[in-house]
Parts: sequence; structure tokens; C-alpha cells
Amino acid sequence: MANSPSGDSMLDRLVRILDSFDAQNPTLTVNSLAHRADVPQATAYRLVDDLVAHGLLARDADRQVRLGVRLWELANRSAPTFDLRRAALPFMEDVNQLVGHNTQLALLHEDEVLVIERLSRPGAVVNQANVAGRMPVHRTSMGLALLAFSPAATLEGFLERHGETMLTTHPQLRRELAEIRRNGYATLDGFIDTESTGAAVPILDSRGHALAVLAVVVPRDAGILPAAVMALRTAARGISRALGA
Amino acid sequence: MANSPSGDSMLDRLVRILDSFDAQNPTLTVNSLAHRADVPQATAYRLVDDLVAHGLLARDADRQVRLGVRLWELANRSAPTFDLRRAALPFMEDVNQLVGHNTQLALLHEDEVLVIERLSRPGAVVNQANVAGRMPVHRTSMGLALLAFSPAATLEGFLERHGETMLTTHPQLRRELAEIRRNGYATLDGFIDTESTGAAVPILDSRGHALAVLAVVVPRDAGILPAAVMALRTAARGISRALGA
Repeated sequence: MANSPSGDSMLDRLVRILDSFDAQNPTLTVNSLAHRADVPQATAYRLVDDLVAHGLLARDADRQVRLGVRLWELANRSAPTFDLRRAALPFMEDVNQLVGHNTQLALLHEDEVLVIERLSRPGAVVNQANVAGRMPVHRTSMGLALLAFSPAATLEGFLERHGETMLTTHPQLRRELAEIRRNGYATLDGFIDTESTGAAVPILDSRGHALAVLAVVVPRDAGILPAAVMALRTAARGISRALGA
Repeated sequence: MANSPSGDSMLDRLVRILDSFDAQNPTLTVNSLAHRADVPQATAYRLVDDLVAHGLLARDADRQVRLGVRLWELANRSAPTFDLRRAALPFMEDVNQLVGHNTQLALLHEDEVLVIERLSRPGAVVNQANVAGRMPVHRTSMGLALLAFSPAATLEGFLERHGETMLTTHPQLRRELAEIRRNGYATLDGFIDTESTGAAVPILDSRGHALAVLAVVVPRDAGILPAAVMALRTAARGISRALGA
């Protein structure tokens, strides 16, 4: 692999360029892209030309750059999340319609919660989750449910890597996770929004470990939480069965 | 960009490697990947190592290779299809439940129909479309509806590039497209499955050009087609409005 004088490989730069786009910044000028990706401007112009020629990036009419349809196609044609999403989507629609609030599907990836799918409802409470967005494990009901139902080695590794940045102490977190395992679900008040509460139920494999998590975000203090949790638990079992777990 | 002795760039090889996976081949051995991507085996082993290290590919327990969750995340976080999909999904759910058959969203990309989203129904008729899969323009109701409502330059370019491979003559195709424009929808019997018929309605922008197409696949001769078309037309208008067109 060709390296630049700084030892930066082509793939390093490519990943940083793709990583510069997000839901808030779907289009960028090449200059701002070079800045965000920490790539010299001349390199960025050449690399963007190449990436546009391959369809991985695209240029808008105003010369701004965005991700290319070809990249989306390549990444989604055999997406690692495909089977999970296909099994979960009908159940997510059921929960979304019966509970009447935003419903999401997520998994644990590199010590964060990665949102795979989200179904919205008009008039639903504010919700920080975006598809393909990441959220902190210990500040979301999704993350706590995923962690509580992780294999022991995953939990211990997570605590080792992230203990110092946690809000709670390890013993306290362990007690909380044990309670989530007993209950079969996690709930947590929104950490940015003061008006919402999240509820999350693991989708379990045959060994009882979380493959993913199904969650809703409901208004706080509306009394809907127990019923929403029951809808999630029922749907999560259906998804496990559909996955052959 | 570093080129191999054959003049093949790193990006050429990367795209061919990603392009080697599809819905039928979500996992591959490195050897079969090298073969499908037309990359020397030693190069493939080195490149796969690099791509796995960057999370763009992942190794299964049995050493087979698949697309990485990180690639999915990067491609979907600010997907070029994001706004369209978000606007369309609630209407697609409505059509899927009311019509009771597979419902799909697609757009015209590089002279082919690219499927963006698909909602399935248990027991629905066979359907060749997969999310992020491609289908031929002139053999699907989706393609005909997209072509009929394309800007004139897009249509002429398509006919110029693909005239010789078409099943119909240009005058005949032009007559069919004119009829689709008058009707506001396209229908076509399945070209592989003899038991299904597709119906497709364009999602129009403010100039009356197709941004995308909404379609269902229904059993042939079941008498459901006129009602399905009306559901699609109603939903397509709702999606246009939701997109601010």
C-alpha cells in the first residue's frame, strides 16, 4: 500500500474522508473536507477526483461533494446487518404503530451503540438516534441492555477500556446490569432531552446473548412505559425466532 | 495514487473487491474473492488484511471474509438516499399493509434501476428485487416509469446507449413511454416470474421529473392491479409533498 511521506496510507485517508460526512454534514466543499479529514488540500483535490470517478463520492451542481450512490450500493448489497434488519423490520413496524413512538434497532459495535434502523412517528418526542449513528453505551437504555446481555468477556473488556470515563462506579454499574438481566429490559431517562425516556429489550441468540437491541423512546411520565416494554419484549422474541435463534 | 504494474489503481482494486460481494455471496474466502475481483492472490491477502484492519471488511470465525460494519456505517450515515428513504418509508408501510404485497422504492442510476428499499409481506409473490440490487430498465415497470418521467436528455442518452440491446424498437418504446406519461403509471408482467405483475408510479419533483419510483409486485390476474395503482399514486403524491417537491 502506498504511503504518503507522513506514513499515512491511501486507506487511512479514504476512511477519514468518508468519515468526514455525517447526518449534519451530508455535503462538504473539498477544502472543508480536506480540513475535516486532515489531508493536505492538493491531495484532497486529487483523491476526490479519483473517488468521484469511481462513484464513491459525487459532486453536486454547486461543486460540493457528497457520498456517492455507488458507495451506498456496494455497502448495502450484502450488508452485515441485512439479515437482522430484514427479520426485525416487520416487528418494528408493529411496535411503532402500537406504541406510537420512535422505534429503533441497534447493536454493540466497537464499544458504542450503532443504530441500524429507526422508524419515526409524526409528533414523537425528540430522539437523538440516527440510522448509522453512534450513541454512548452507558448513557442509553439500548447500551445498557446490550451490555447486560453481552458475553462476560465483552462486558469485562468494556469495563477495562471505559471504566474511567463512566459516570457510575463499576460496582454500581454491575448492580444495574444484574437488575437489567433479572428484568429482561433496560429503561433510562434521556440524557440530553429531559422529556423522554428510553426502553430497550435485547434480541437474544440461543445462548442468551444479545445479538441486537430493540428500543422505543417515549414521553417521560406518560404512564406508557410498562406497556411499551411489554410490546418490545414480545417483538424481540418474535425477531429472535425469525432469526432462527 | 499507487498503481500496480498493470496500471490498476488501489481504488480500482478496492471497488472490485467490494463489488465481489452480493446478496447471494455475502461471505467469500480470500481465494474466491481474489478470483472474483481479478486481483492476484498475494495482493488480495495483503489488501484484505488492510481492509479488515480498517473495518471495511470483517473476518468470520471460519476465516471467510464479509463486508464490515464500519463500511455500512460510513456509507449510511449521510447516505445520498437518506432524505428520499425517510420521506418514503411511512407511505411504503401504508401501501405494504393496504395492498398486502411487496412494496419497493427505486431510482435510476447509471442506466439501471437501483432498489433503495423494499418491504416484504409474508406469502407475497416471488420478487426479484433486493435492497441495493439492480434491475434492467426496460424489463421492469419501475424502469419504464422512471424512464417515462425522465428529462428528455436522460431518455435520449439512454436510448443512444442501450438501443441495440432493447427488446422493443425505439418507436415502439417511445409509444409505450408516452402512454405511461398519459396514465401516470407503468405496469409490466414479471419477465422471470410468470405469476407476478409489477406496477410503478413515479415520485415527481416540482418540474414533473421522476426523483424515484414507488412500486408493488402483485399476483397476475388477481384483479388487484387497479386498486394497487391507486394506492401507489396516492402514496407517491404524499412522498413528493413530504420531500417539499
